[in-house]
Parts: sequence; C-alpha cells; structure tokens
Amino acid sequence: MFSFFPTARVRPSPFFEAAVAEGMVAANVYNRMIMPTSFGDPEGEYWRLINGVSQWDVGVERQVQLKGPDAGRLAQILSPRDLSACKIGQGKYVPLCNHRGTIINDPILLKLSDDLYWLSIADSDIWLWASAIAAERGLNVEITEPDVSPMALQGPKAEDVVAHVLGDWVRALKYFWFKETEIDGIPIAVQRSGWSKQGGFEIYLRDGTQGTKLWNIFKEAGKPWGIGPGAPATAERTESGLVSVGGDTDDETNPFEVRLGKYVDLDVPDDVVGIGALRKIEAEGPKRHQLGLIFDASMPVPFGAKREDITFDGTKVGVMTHCTWSPRMKANIGYALISTDVKAGATVSVNRANGSMAARLVELPFL
Amino acid sequence: MFSFFPTARVRPSPFFEAAVAEGMVAANVYNRMIMPTSFGDPEGEYWRLINGVSQWDVGVERQVQLKGPDAGRLAQILSPRDLSACKIGQGKYVPLCNHRGTIINDPILLKLSDDLYWLSIADSDIWLWASAIAAERGLNVEITEPDVSPMALQGPKAEDVVAHVLGDWVRALKYFWFKETEIDGIPIAVQRSGWSKQGGFEIYLRDGTQGTKLWNIFKEAGKPWGIGPGAPATAERTESGLVSVGGDTDDETNPFEVRLGKYVDLDVPDDVVGIGALRKIEAEGPKRHQLGLIFDASMPVPFGAKREDITFDGTKVGVMTHCTWSPRMKANIGYALISTDVKAGATVSVNRANGSMAARLVELPFL
Repeated sequence: MFSFFPTARVRPSPFFEAAVAEGMVAANVYNRMIMPTSFGDPEGEYWRLINGVSQWDVGVERQVQLKGPDAGRLAQILSPRDLSACKIGQGKYVPLCNHRGTIINDPILLKLSDDLYWLSIADSDIWLWASAIAAERGLNVEITEPDVSPMALQGPKAEDVVAHVLGDWVRALKYFWFKETEIDGIPIAVQRSGWSKQGGFEIYLRDGTQGTKLWNIFKEAGKPWGIGPGAPATAERTESGLVSVGGDTDDETNPFEVRLGKYVDLDVPDDVVGIGALRKIEAEGPKRHQLGLIFDASMPVPFGAKREDITFDGTKVGVMTHCTWSPRMKANIGYALISTDVKAGATVSVNRANGSMAARLVELPFL
Repeated sequence: MFSFFPTARVRPSPFFEAAVAEGMVAANVYNRMIMPTSFGDPEGEYWRLINGVSQWDVGVERQVQLKGPDAGRLAQILSPRDLSACKIGQGKYVPLCNHRGTIINDPILLKLSDDLYWLSIADSDIWLWASAIAAERGLNVEITEPDVSPMALQGPKAEDVVAHVLGDWVRALKYFWFKETEIDGIPIAVQRSGWSKQGGFEIYLRDGTQGTKLWNIFKEAGKPWGIGPGAPATAERTESGLVSVGGDTDDETNPFEVRLGKYVDLDVPDDVVGIGALRKIEAEGPKRHQLGLIFDASMPVPFGAKREDITFDGTKVGVMTHCTWSPRMKANIGYALISTDVKAGATVSVNRANGSMAARLVELPFL
C-alpha cells in the first residue's frame, strides 16, 4: 500500500468529488483515470452489494464513439460477435480481438442509432485501436471519446432505486438494453448492466459538469434502501466468474481460453479483425482454460501484483491470475489459467512467496 | 491523496521490490504498471537530481519490439521523423502521430539491428497501435513486449557512477546512443538518455528476474557520489521544458503545438502514418502553442487533476495543463496550451478553484 496523487495525465471522473465526499480511501487507475476501490469498509461494501444497493463511480469505463456512415461496419469489423441483429437501444458484450485472436478488450457495445455506436471499454486504448483500423481501411467514421461517464447502481435493490428516480419503465429494460433520457435536466442513458452478478444499472452521464449533482440525486433517492458507496468488488466478481481483461488475460489469451467462446461467431464476415485466427484456434482447440481455485488453508501472503506459478505433479501447468477472500464461501479462491491437460477436480500447487500451497480446481463460476 | 494496492492488472516492474526497500511512499500508474513517484523527501530528491545522482525505477517505460524483415519499414511508417540515417546502436526521440497528425506517444526508438527495433514508450498502448498498422498493411514483422525494463541514473554525477560500474567507455556514448553489454551476468543495454535535462543514462534490464540485483549494483557503486532513490521529477521537467504526452497534450494536439515540430520531417515517404495531415497543419500554421506560466503569487489550491481554463481580456484562450513549485526559480510555474494569438510576455488569468490568478506567459524552457 502506498499513496497516490492525481495528475493531469491521470484524470478524475466527473464523480471524483462525490467519491471523495463519500470517504474514498483507496483507488486504482483504469484507462488513465482514477477509479475508487474502497471507502474504508470492505466487508460492509461487499454485503451492501450482495444484499442491498451499492453506488459506484465507474467513469473509468470510457466510451469510444463510432459515428458516421461506416460506424456499423466498423463495429462489426472490430467484433468477432455477430452484430447483424443488434437493434437500436440494445447493448451487447463483445470481446475484441487483435489479428492473432488475442483478446484486447471486452466492451459493452451500445447501438444508439444506425450510424452511432459506443464501446464502453475495459482498460486498454481502444480509441487508438479503432482509429488505426478505421483509417487503414478508409472507412467513413469519426472516432472520438465523448463526454459520457457511467455511474453504476448494483445489487438486488438497485432496480427499486433507479425506478424510484426515473420511473417504473426501467424495470422492463432487458439485460444490456438502454434508453436515452434525462433527470433534472441532466442528459443520461440508462442501461441494465454493471460489473457484478447482483443485478443493476449503469447510468451514463452525458454532461461531465453534472457528476456531483447526478451522484447526489441517486444517493438521496436510495436512502430508504440503504444505498452507500462501493466499487467493482474483487470478491463478488471472482465468486461470480466475471473476467477482468488484462488481469485474468495476458498477451496470448484468446476468448476460448477464458470462457468467452460463446461470444465469438465464427461465421461473421472474413473482414472481421482476428476471425481467421479465431477459426483456427477453435478448430485446433484451445491449449489453456480458466478454472477456479479453492484453497484449503488461509493465505499468509496476500496476493500482490505477480502471477504465481501453478504446478501439477511437479510440472508447471499455468498461473494463478488473482485470488481473494470470499465472504460467502468463507474460503480463499482464485482463478487459474492453466493447461487443458489439467481438469477440474485435480489438486494443484500454487507457488507463493512463502512456499507452495495446495488448491483444488473447480469449474467457474463459483456461485 | 489516497491509497493504492497492486493488482494483477497493474503490474510491478522488476525494480518494485527494490523501490519498496528504498522506502517508496507514493506511486502513480503508467502503462498499467506501478511507477514510484516519491520516497518521502521531495526536496531532497529534487536537489539530488540537480546536484548529484538519482536512481529511478522507470520500468514503466515499456518496450514495443519490432522484429523481422519489415521492422525498419514499420518503424518509419510509424514515425514522422526521418529514420533513414539511423544507425545500429543509435536512438532517436520520435513523436508518433495518428492519421490526423495528433501525437499519441513520444518514444525513444532504439535500432538494435536492421531487423530489430525497440520503441521505449510513454503512456499509451503502442503495442496495440503498431500491431494494428502492421497487420492491416500486411507487413512481415512480429510485435511483442519483450522482457526489457529501464532503470535510470540521472543527474550530473550519473556518468561517474555508470562509468565506475561499466567502464569509462560509457563516457563516449553520444546522446540517445546505446550499447548492449552485461554486468555480473545480467544482460543489459546502456543508453545516454533519461527524462530530465540533468544528464544521465538508462540501463535497460533484459532479465526481469534480476531487477533487485541490478538495482543494488548501482546503489552500492553510487554511494561515494551520494546516490539515492528518486523518480521523474515534475519540478525539474517543467523547469527544463520537457513534454509529458497525455498530460500536456490532449486528443487534438499535434507536434507543432508543443514545440516538437523539429522532430517532424515533412519529406518522409507518403505512407508514413499522419504525414499528410502534418504537412497540412504545418502549411496552415498551428492554432495553439505551448508556453510557460509564471505566477506572481503562491498557489493556495494545489494543482489536481483538472486542466484549468486560461482567460485573456475575459476570453478563454486555452488551458493550464499542469503547474508545480520550482525550487530553483522559487516560483510557481506551469505550462499553457493556448491560442497562438496570445504571445509570451502577456499576463493571463488562470481560473482556479478558489478564484482566478494572474500569471505571466514566457517561452519554454524556463531554465
């Protein structure tokens, strides 16, 4: 643990002041922006997500906007998932791959109109990537990062809060579908979405000067449901089997290795970036898979920033990409990216700083 | 100020443990890696850089390696600076631009052989960018991030320390030239380089398991010269007029606006990314320029993460991209990215959180 100071290179989100006012005590950096990660009560924040409603500054989920006659064509070229049936107002989870079939990001794609799309991105420079592909292919599309910043309401009571603020129509929104609207004159889009499996919404703020006001509207409205601040929760996302691109993946990871093969449509057009490589990988079968790890013992050395080797019968078979304490399972759990030769049910050794520790491999998700 | 915890997504450098042992108290994130920024004695660290020798973990300067028959061709396609005379063993500072002529990074390019180049990058995903351009153009070149991590020795006494460790031959290295060598069996490359104007070297570690050992070799050798830990110093780089891409630049900034036009050769081949746009910008003349700001008064509100508007005669003419206290000038200084209509010598207003403050515009560098 050490201190961090904002700079011009690493931006705050429009909700930064609200997060500081809420008592933010820790943060990380994501897309060169500050992402709050703790408000000082990790257990309380976890249970609020599981049982109540938690309010998150996820303005770090930058939007890459594709606008123009070729916007839809570029969206499909970037996406190895078939978008031909995607409707206006619909969102889709799309793992983006490079020409070698390696995952480089896994945004939610939002179709706002036939010539306007957003990619609500994970942590890599998709603005650069999309700009390169579009320009090299001579597409007529403008790629920008618009003034759009998501705030999340997550947890089983999130729907009640969002419906209280915006109306009961939000209850009818299907998963990843969204609607453009406004509240107190603040332009927003509302989507059933969010990086947890506890249900909820993301509110896309479309005026970066109104972050504190928007935050406080939901904070006030959520009081009867016990709303409080939180952040994307390592324990919950691990229990739920969500993938963190860049954390769980490396420079060689393809979608089939990390349970994302269902989002790859092998029959998309041949001009989709990486589809040739993905067809070949699928045909040959991936060499690694992602499994869960459950440790028998407590973990005297907290997981830091280094992936730790996993051995089976004395041979290195993969790495542990992260691990965490699960309050619901009352166990230390983690993810393995590991040879497909080693299956769920096996017991492996994780080579930690203070010695090896046994863990059992299980299928994901845990819960 | 808030706390930061490493995760798998945000990597440590091979010098991380050495930096922790040195007493790192603050860090930032750069290229999704942890960069130490303070060891608890800002003034001491500053004067050590100015008068002595400072040791920096700059492993965050990732290398993007171009390898193969088309490596040189790709290097030139990415670089609006003429590389045709670049020799093996030579490095060159190269602002990379997108197709619209916007700066996206400003690496040092190192030519290791005719088919092997490194781009020692600033903070953006040039691995993605270079991969996109190479694949779209069908070039025969492999793009990877090799196991190479720079450590810097900076300050007027750095040469003595590096010569003591490696031999007096290092004194003959010209600026940005480098040599591959080893020390105690650790493979390295040594370059006269570094993100300060106080002179010094960057030692490119080529075996990530040897970071602590390499750190300690130079730490021990430097004791007679008073070596100690430090980090890229905002005050020094501002006084010296160095550009921080992403901090001083935005999504529309071209090289001519931030004093980097001398690194653009308008007669490079037409297939260089962005050269068409850069020729047009140069012909029309840039609309903004980068000047220094000197405040008369102290700064009750420290500069945070937001660019602050600059007004002249009541009209917004640009932004302050950062500011800092200069121990040598004994003044608060900063950078303005501002309309070319407003010239050095003018006094402008910077609209700070607690009110506007007067500052005088000057040409850069300050010192």
